[in-house]
Amino acid sequence: MRMSKGRLIVFSAPSGCGKGTMLAEILKDENYCVSVSATTRSPREGEVDGVNYYFMSKGDFLQRVADSEFLEYAEYCDNYYGTLMSEVDGKLNEGKNVILEIEVQGALKIREKRPDALMIFILPPSVSELRRRLKKRGTETDEVIEQRVSQAAREIEVASKYDYAIVNDALEDAISDFFAVMRAEKLKTQFSENTINEVLKNA
Amino acid sequence: MRMSKGRLIVFSAPSGCGKGTMLAEILKDENYCVSVSATTRSPREGEVDGVNYYFMSKGDFLQRVADSEFLEYAEYCDNYYGTLMSEVDGKLNEGKNVILEIEVQGALKIREKRPDALMIFILPPSVSELRRRLKKRGTETDEVIEQRVSQAAREIEVASKYDYAIVNDALEDAISDFFAVMRAEKLKTQFSENTINEVLKNA
Repeated sequence: MRMSKGRLIVFSAPSGCGKGTMLAEILKDENYCVSVSATTRSPREGEVDGVNYYFMSKGDFLQRVADSEFLEYAEYCDNYYGTLMSEVDGKLNEGKNVILEIEVQGALKIREKRPDALMIFILPPSVSELRRRLKKRGTETDEVIEQRVSQAAREIEVASKYDYAIVNDALEDAISDFFAVMRAEKLKTQFSENTINEVLKNA
Repeated sequence: MRMSKGRLIVFSAPSGCGKGTMLAEILKDENYCVSVSATTRSPREGEVDGVNYYFMSKGDFLQRVADSEFLEYAEYCDNYYGTLMSEVDGKLNEGKNVILEIEVQGALKIREKRPDALMIFILPPSVSELRRRLKKRGTETDEVIEQRVSQAAREIEVASKYDYAIVNDALEDAISDFFAVMRAEKLKTQFSENTINEVLKNA
């Protein structure tokens, strides 16, 4: 079978929805990878250029912004972070599905630039369960937890703009949901023109 | 969990694609059923009204056509056959996924009337494999087989107008494809507004 291009996947979830655990599970499948971001912040101990981030100067970063080389970028704590188009397309052309882990506003911008992106939102079973999970961590004050919960609720309101919403209640089910989505997407006729043409060959 | 409405599924395949075997497999799952057609032809030995068909007179059938009670209907060998809207909607409201096994032209008409219908096309691995399968049956002359193969090729050209195309090469894979599609469809945000609202409840 001919190798086909990978799929660009936008993956968003409010804090506390278990996105990290889900991603770790998905990345065990070698057909998936995450996109390495570019940043202007300094490398920390042990961080490797091209693995953790592409480290670059502010001048270099802004030149690339001017040259429209970024799929999206944002400023955070006086540094820039962004996704290079070349990084994403390189991996897609290798046949990998590229996961962009990104917050809601950035995700919606990507949708505009890349209507072929597959947008997946991870939901908690309920907002009250999310509050319970955040409290269980015990790392934040009640006030901070309430801020996170409100933030999560605002993000969830945008979930309907994504293609799919997966509830992460039991991890195993959420992972099966994800792979069912990927399997079904491949069967969509808009992506299987090649299959149809192959079937018709030598008719 | 609240019972949700079932999904209307349009299922088409050229002759020799193993649609019957696939359907039999899918119908083992009690969430799925086929729609019982209405017809003006006489019941055959053993056929039961409301099980095999809804048997009715031509006068009754045409009155129902005039009253727009059919989702689709066609004339075949001097008799009418059709799908009653009441039959389909009754089963959907019971929470069943209703499969309409229907040829390409009828299917495209249903798409117009019911844009929510899930359109699935079953493909053979290749047209030459289809020819091989038909020959293996040994029930038709070469001429009839070639007619069927040409007819299949014409139908396959319309496959891209369906939502999904599933190649029935190994039955087990085709069935898994089908259930992956159904699972993914439920996760589409356009059908999971309720889920999102439930998550936000008591925020």
